[in-house]
Amino acid sequence: MDEFQLIERYFRRPAPGGAGVEVGIGDDGAIVRLPPGRELVVVVDTLVAGVHFPADMVPAEVGYRALAVNLSDVAAMGAEPAWMTLALTLPAPDADWLEGFAAGLWDLAGRHGVALVGGDTTRGPLTVSVQVLGHLPAGTRLLRGGARPGDRVFVSGTPGDAAAGLGLRSPGSEAERRLRARFLRPEPRLGLGRALAGRASAAIAAIDVSDGLLADLAHICEASGTGAVIDEERLPLSAALIEFAGRERAAELALTGGDDYELCFTLPPEVDAHDLSADVEVAEIGVMTPEPGIRLRRHEREVPLPAGGYRHFGDDP
Amino acid sequence: MDEFQLIERYFRRPAPGGAGVEVGIGDDGAIVRLPPGRELVVVVDTLVAGVHFPADMVPAEVGYRALAVNLSDVAAMGAEPAWMTLALTLPAPDADWLEGFAAGLWDLAGRHGVALVGGDTTRGPLTVSVQVLGHLPAGTRLLRGGARPGDRVFVSGTPGDAAAGLGLRSPGSEAERRLRARFLRPEPRLGLGRALAGRASAAIAAIDVSDGLLADLAHICEASGTGAVIDEERLPLSAALIEFAGRERAAELALTGGDDYELCFTLPPEVDAHDLSADVEVAEIGVMTPEPGIRLRRHEREVPLPAGGYRHFGDDP
Repeated sequence: MDEFQLIERYFRRPAPGGAGVEVGIGDDGAIVRLPPGRELVVVVDTLVAGVHFPADMVPAEVGYRALAVNLSDVAAMGAEPAWMTLALTLPAPDADWLEGFAAGLWDLAGRHGVALVGGDTTRGPLTVSVQVLGHLPAGTRLLRGGARPGDRVFVSGTPGDAAAGLGLRSPGSEAERRLRARFLRPEPRLGLGRALAGRASAAIAAIDVSDGLLADLAHICEASGTGAVIDEERLPLSAALIEFAGRERAAELALTGGDDYELCFTLPPEVDAHDLSADVEVAEIGVMTPEPGIRLRRHEREVPLPAGGYRHFGDDP
Repeated sequence: MDEFQLIERYFRRPAPGGAGVEVGIGDDGAIVRLPPGRELVVVVDTLVAGVHFPADMVPAEVGYRALAVNLSDVAAMGAEPAWMTLALTLPAPDADWLEGFAAGLWDLAGRHGVALVGGDTTRGPLTVSVQVLGHLPAGTRLLRGGARPGDRVFVSGTPGDAAAGLGLRSPGSEAERRLRARFLRPEPRLGLGRALAGRASAAIAAIDVSDGLLADLAHICEASGTGAVIDEERLPLSAALIEFAGRERAAELALTGGDDYELCFTLPPEVDAHDLSADVEVAEIGVMTPEPGIRLRRHEREVPLPAGGYRHFGDDP
C-alpha cells in the first residue's frame, strides 16, 4: 500500500456539513473558510512511540490521544476546533494498526466535528504529529496571563486519575478500570473552555493540565506575575482514586500527575462558577496570591509541596 | 536544556510587522488574524532523517528544506505564506545542531515574512514536521484539476538539477556546485504562484515538482481527467546539468528527478505566459490532451518514457 492508497483508505472522509472546507485532502494544500469575525487558533502536539506512549499501545488509543491532547489545548484557549492535519510517520504501512489508529482518531474527531484537511505519511520511527485549527470570536480568548491576586483557582474533573491509570495495564477492580479509562481516553474540556471564553469581559486565565496540576498552574502564575495557594482538602479526588491509592497518595497524584487534560483556570471574584453551565464539574481549590511561587495548605496550615511538585520556568532540569 | 529553554533560545522571534499574530509561542495555542476576504491555506510536510535527508546533513540545510518544501506547496496553491508551526523530534537537545537548524529555517522564513507561531519539541528519532498557513483572495486558488485538453504545459526553472545535485556531496566543478546548491536550497516559487493565481479568471492547474516532472504532471492529468504530451527538446535544461550529465541523461533527470520544487502548470490558450512577470523563467514544454496518460515526443516523434517515469495514481508500488 503506498501513501496515496493509505490516505484514501483511512484518512479521506467527507468533511462535516458547515465545516468550511473548500478544498480538502488531495491537492498541494487545503483551503478552508474561517467564519466572519473569528480569529484563528493554532495548536500542535507530537506523540513519539516509546516516549509519549508505549510502542505496543492499542492503535485506537494512539489515534484518540493524538487528537485529544490537541483538542485539550484548543479548549484551554476557549476556542472551537474545526480542522486538523496529521503528520504520521510509520515504520511500515501496517493495515491493522492503521485501521485501529484511524478508528480512534475519527471517533473523537466525529464527536467534535473536526475535519481532516491534510497530512503527510512518511516511513520512519512511529511518530504522530497532529495540528488542530480552531476559531473563536475575536477578543474572547483565554490566556495564561489573565490571573490577578485574589482570583480563585479552579480545576475541572478529578485530577490524578490518569496518572494512576497510566501504570494499570491490566486493571482488575472497577476502580482500576475507571482510572485506566481516564488515562486512555481523556476528555478534552471543550464545552468548559467555550463557557469560560464566553465570560470574556472578565480576566480569566486557563491552561490544560498535561504535566500536572502544580506544574501547569505554575505556568499561569509565571505568565500572570502571581503566585497561588492551594488547599489540599479541596482537591476533587475521585472515589476510584482514593480506593486505589489512599487519600494521601491520591492528593499527591492530583497535584503532580500528568495526562489529566482537565482545565485549570482562575476566576475573578465577580464571576460565579455556577454560572458556567459546562459539561464537567469544576472545583475551587485555592486562590492566586501577589507573592510568587505555589504553596500548599492542609486545613489552613502550610505543608511542603510533594516531591517533584513543579519546576519553575527556567530551572535546570 | 529543557523544552522551554530550547524554544526560547532558538525559536522565539518577534513576528514580522503586519503578520497578524495576536498570540504567538508561549500559551496553549497561537491566535492569528486572517485578513478580510481571504481564505486560509494549510499545508504540512514531514522530513525524517535517513528517509528524506541523510542523518548527517548540515543542520542549516535541514532547517531550510523543512520550510522550503512547505512554501513550495503554498506556491502551488497560489497563496501567500504567513504563519508556521514546527514539530521537531530530536534524539537530544544538541545546541550546535539546533543553532544551525534554526539559522536555515529563519533565513528562509525571514525572506518570506513567515512567523513561527507554535511548535512542539520532543525527544525521539530526528523528524521535522512543518506546517505552513497562508492565505489568498477568496476564489483565486490554483488546483490540480484545472487543466483542459489544448492547454499548454509549462515548468519553471531548470528541472533535473536537484536530482543531479543530490548525489554530489563533494562537488568539484562550478557546474557541480550549482547543481548541489539547487538540491540544497530549492527556491519556493511563491512569486510565480501568486502571479498565476492573479489570473484566476482563467482555468489554471498547478502543482509543485517534488516527485519528478512526469510524476507530478500525472497528478494534474489525473485530477483534470486529461493526458499530456511533452516535447523533450523543449525541456529547459540548465547548462550545468548538460555539462554534468550529457544532454540525454539531463533530459531524463528533468523528467524523472525529484526535489526540484519548481512549479508545473497549465495555461489555457488565451493566457500569454509572458504576461505573468514572475521571478523565474518559465518554459512551455507540451500540451494537455483529451486521452489519458503522458506521452513523450522527440522532434515530433513519440519515444518511450524513461524508466521509472511515473506511476499512475493507484498503481501498486
